Amino acid sequence: MKEKHGAILILSGPSGCGKSTLLKEVYKDIEDYYFSISTTTREPREGEEHGVDYLFTSKEEFEKDIENGDFLEYANVHGNYYGTSLKPVKEALNEGKLVIFDIDVQGHELVRKQLDDVVTSVFITTPNLTELENRLNSRATDSKDVIEKRIKNAKHEVEFFQDYDYFIVNDNLEEASKQLVSIANIARIKTKLFNKENIVSSWLK
Amino acid sequence: MKEKHGAILILSGPSGCGKSTLLKEVYKDIEDYYFSISTTTREPREGEEHGVDYLFTSKEEFEKDIENGDFLEYANVHGNYYGTSLKPVKEALNEGKLVIFDIDVQGHELVRKQLDDVVTSVFITTPNLTELENRLNSRATDSKDVIEKRIKNAKHEVEFFQDYDYFIVNDNLEEASKQLVSIANIARIKTKLFNKENIVSSWLK
Repeated sequence: MKEKHGAILILSGPSGCGKSTLLKEVYKDIEDYYFSISTTTREPREGEEHGVDYLFTSKEEFEKDIENGDFLEYANVHGNYYGTSLKPVKEALNEGKLVIFDIDVQGHELVRKQLDDVVTSVFITTPNLTELENRLNSRATDSKDVIEKRIKNAKHEVEFFQDYDYFIVNDNLEEASKQLVSIANIARIKTKLFNKENIVSSWLK
Repeated sequence: MKEKHGAILILSGPSGCGKSTLLKEVYKDIEDYYFSISTTTREPREGEEHGVDYLFTSKEEFEKDIENGDFLEYANVHGNYYGTSLKPVKEALNEGKLVIFDIDVQGHELVRKQLDDVVTSVFITTPNLTELENRLNSRATDSKDVIEKRIKNAKHEVEFFQDYDYFIVNDNLEEASKQLVSIANIARIKTKLFNKENIVSSWLK
């Protein structure tokens, strides 16, 4: 009866809320996952690598892929495209993997619409806006303009937290990691993922 | 912004699936919970204590409490009453505790109807029916008649597993405990438990 199910774990939350740091902690404690690398047309930040942080591509290539229906979701954020290719996600799901997405609220809504039953989603924030501003200013990787855009966007995104299943306030890395690991641990045992007839008939054997 | 929320965790599954053993493991790893002790009119089994395993009461007392509306849920199973008193559950929720219930599929349905937003539920089974029969026979606490009733009931209950949020196949205590602890860890960060206006306005401060 032990079936192995693929599932999707979506993380969203304002830029600067600590998603990447949290994910690094989570990867130490979970198995059999596939992190979905987004494709983007924005410039790499210092230290970012193609194929690790993002698949960096040109606006022209991105728009060609949109036309071909290659994206599970995509959006234009702060003037740049971000998107998730469908093919590797489907493959990982078929292999029974936990597919992890770091995408924004629009992306979440689009994936939910298509694949609701296999999705578990988490909204992550800093304790408050001031803390987010502090973190964005202190990491000093972005220009003032970009930081302002991120803050404006954060104010908009937080309105959507209740579209998600779970809500993590990241003010203590250890506690937040524990919560995120717990969510990852059980994303593949949601009853929605199981076929009722298969389960009942094989249980009665 | 860090609000503390009470929530309910419901465990169901056939008698003999290992719920009690699993719960003992879970209690080592979680905090701030309240185990809801059921009231029953059945006879105590060997080793069972009043106030620990159950509140044992008479049929007459139980029926008086039903009339007074004192039960959150109750049912008649195998000729005995089982029920959950409302008052201690409400108190524990107000204190921000995780209230844990070990109840059957009927009880789950009744609690869901009244308190859906605060409930996380888990269905636990043995890998299959044969394994359940083996466990019931080997624990030797029940008569043949009682075991037969439990098996008949199990066949009925398993049909309802998809009314639950999560599904645990208890064929490996360590793995099943990890899953149950994970579910308990996040039952109180479901977005449904948070008041949107409060969260958004306090985040923007």
